[in-house]
Amino acid sequence: MSDSGDHGTGRPLPAPPRPQGAYVPWVRHGELVVTAGMTPRDATGALQVTGLVGGEVTPEQARRAAALAAANALSAVADAAGGLDRVARCLRMSVFVACVDGFVALSALADAASEELAAHLGTDRLPARSAIGVRALPGGAPVEIELTAVVRPT
Amino acid sequence: MSDSGDHGTGRPLPAPPRPQGAYVPWVRHGELVVTAGMTPRDATGALQVTGLVGGEVTPEQARRAAALAAANALSAVADAAGGLDRVARCLRMSVFVACVDGFVALSALADAASEELAAHLGTDRLPARSAIGVRALPGGAPVEIELTAVVRPT
Amino acid sequence: MSDSGDHGTGRPLPAPPRPQGAYVPWVRHGELVVTAGMTPRDATGALQVTGLVGGEVTPEQARRAAALAAANALSAVADAAGGLDRVARCLRMSVFVACVDGFVALSALADAASEELAAHLGTDRLPARSAIGVRALPGGAPVEIELTAVVRPT
Repeated sequence: MSDSGDHGTGRPLPAPPRPQGAYVPWVRHGELVVTAGMTPRDATGALQVTGLVGGEVTPEQARRAAALAAANALSAVADAAGGLDRVARCLRMSVFVACVDGFVALSALADAASEELAAHLGTDRLPARSAIGVRALPGGAPVEIELTAVVRPT
Repeated sequence: MSDSGDHGTGRPLPAPPRPQGAYVPWVRHGELVVTAGMTPRDATGALQVTGLVGGEVTPEQARRAAALAAANALSAVADAAGGLDRVARCLRMSVFVACVDGFVALSALADAASEELAAHLGTDRLPARSAIGVRALPGGAPVEIELTAVVRPT
Repeated sequence: MSDSGDHGTGRPLPAPPRPQGAYVPWVRHGELVVTAGMTPRDATGALQVTGLVGGEVTPEQARRAAALAAANALSAVADAAGGLDRVARCLRMSVFVACVDGFVALSALADAASEELAAHLGTDRLPARSAIGVRALPGGAPVEIELTAVVRPT
């Protein structure tokens, strides 16, 4: 994966995390790419934080987790595309947040994810997004993000 | 946004709610349109109801909330399409419901959303749908709906 | 629906469940097929198991439920395609699991769903997937699965 072609701030994308299990990080069909749900894992595959947002996970940890999950999803898209500069645009981002009852500040977490995308893509390729507060995510991750994107023909 | 081209009962679509934050209401790529997750906001952006379905939100309030969220999502699709008559068909509707434990009457809420779409589109352009009961939605909304649709070339 | 064209183990796909309510099991547009959220129903439409995973639903029941829901979703795709051999590939699978607090072994359930798809499609047409633990699903189903797939032109 390359961080050349970064049209945002030039912040490098992380390497895609090592897949956990029998898991496909992305599927490409023609110009369409969909990613698996990505959690805040580092390049070794280790989750950087676990727990519920609004509980043991602080707002700042949650924002960092959302940014890392978004970066991992974008990294998968860039892999599928053959580079970040071949990502024509993101279509949809679903931001699932494992949270305690009554945690409704979900848009702030989706903002952190959108800002991470914008740091790499600029603002004109951002997706429509949804933020959903759920009960549990794989491995106890506080955030899971999936992307649908359009890439340029190769 | 226009309510001309309404092939259903002629009920007018609401104006799209004023976006909250750094938020893209829809993305169009070719003939494909995806909307952000839409909540039951009025044209000023104010949520019409908050709380958990099966708790403080009554079944009738929940059905109205589902219909309004669906109307807002369809309004975004119509904006993207250049009018409701240019919406070829809806592909998918995801209906997320913030609910109390044990609330499983989710299909009735998805029905309310489908009926709202049918009132504007007729029944032959309805999407495949999913209904999912979750813990929390942005701002305490009881319902969040996202649409994927196909629009006619312009 | 036909089980000819099965490129996996030859296990037959179930007949699609009888639709419940005003419900579209799939929508096809061109080569793209999206299914409704499918639960572990048998051909009569009866849910085979209800309850929360990690609670009254055992891990083994949950895995069987995930496999049945995945089979029902794939059956809908095959119907849309005109046969399983006309399914070019799956793009995305969303696996929603109704679970108790703290249930984070969601990847094992998504694995059961992926294995069911692989039994019919082989491994080279598997989708990118997400697993999400939620509060409630329609009718008390423990699992709901939706698929997006690409089918061959007819």
